[in-house]
Amino acid sequence: MPAAPKHRQAIVNSCVTLFRRKGYSATGLNDIVEASGAPKGSLYHYFPDGKSSIAVAAVEEAGRRVAETVRKLSAECATAGDLVKAHARLIAGWMKQSGFRDGCPITTVLLELAPADRAVTEAGRKAYAARTDVMKQKLVADGIPERRADRLAILCSATLQGALIQSRVERSGTPIVTAADELADLLASA
Amino acid sequence: MPAAPKHRQAIVNSCVTLFRRKGYSATGLNDIVEASGAPKGSLYHYFPDGKSSIAVAAVEEAGRRVAETVRKLSAECATAGDLVKAHARLIAGWMKQSGFRDGCPITTVLLELAPADRAVTEAGRKAYAARTDVMKQKLVADGIPERRADRLAILCSATLQGALIQSRVERSGTPIVTAADELADLLASA
Repeated sequence: MPAAPKHRQAIVNSCVTLFRRKGYSATGLNDIVEASGAPKGSLYHYFPDGKSSIAVAAVEEAGRRVAETVRKLSAECATAGDLVKAHARLIAGWMKQSGFRDGCPITTVLLELAPADRAVTEAGRKAYAARTDVMKQKLVADGIPERRADRLAILCSATLQGALIQSRVERSGTPIVTAADELADLLASA
Repeated sequence: MPAAPKHRQAIVNSCVTLFRRKGYSATGLNDIVEASGAPKGSLYHYFPDGKSSIAVAAVEEAGRRVAETVRKLSAECATAGDLVKAHARLIAGWMKQSGFRDGCPITTVLLELAPADRAVTEAGRKAYAARTDVMKQKLVADGIPERRADRLAILCSATLQGALIQSRVERSGTPIVTAADELADLLASA
């Protein structure tokens, strides 16, 4: 079946949404076909290696979106602490809008497949690293020496990632906003 | 088929391990039967409401283990910062021992099922809250006022949770130890 190029992006976009809501294993090929509107044949056309290769593409796409979002926020924020706070509020808003059904578009897939699936694990590693790097640059711009900025950036990323999970479970933006605000306070007084 | 009471715990223990490795959806009833050694009939006997009720029991069991671990560590540590550092090292050691296949026994299941499955979501909320409460008590013992301790405890829990995911993806204990050490430093200087 000939597949129009547009279907590839529709498939990937649908998977980003499906995976962030219910994860990789619970998402069937029929769910992807239905959500994307792509003909079933196009799945095999673009992803001849099967569902796990769609997961790689979805994690890469999600990673691009996250990095772009954080870069944009970073340009608008005065300090790394402000960036952490702004990112937390953005995520809390998105989660609320989805009735707390939308989680991180990367984490669930990774927890299901890492480290056994090397390609997905590597895509996730790069996605996290891209976000952490934006955070690090902001810390350096705040005057923090590079080596410490590297370490604090890991802390900032980990905090947002973990707090997002707590917000999902609590069905409330409070945990992620609280964790971010406290971390920003500590960074400011450091 | 009559089921010996011992099978219930074997089923739950096996699910804690299976869910932390590959999540809920990818774990089939046959996997649970095989890992637990329990006869298939005992699954239906103890969990007549099916697989999602096993998930509730597994999240509760994992929550009990985590709370017990953190309580024990807390008694051995001088400060909340030391507790965060000790917990990170314990988790890093366990992950390394499993070849970074073992993740958090609660998070993956929650990300797959929350908030749609209310019973699993509530079990996860209680499990996280129990850990966060031990952290809070330690912060209060450090002399931090109760209201701020509540907020900092959320930060501490979120950091460990998010950093665990990064460690899994990096196949290294470094992210979780780094995040914990930096957070402990910030807490000490706060």
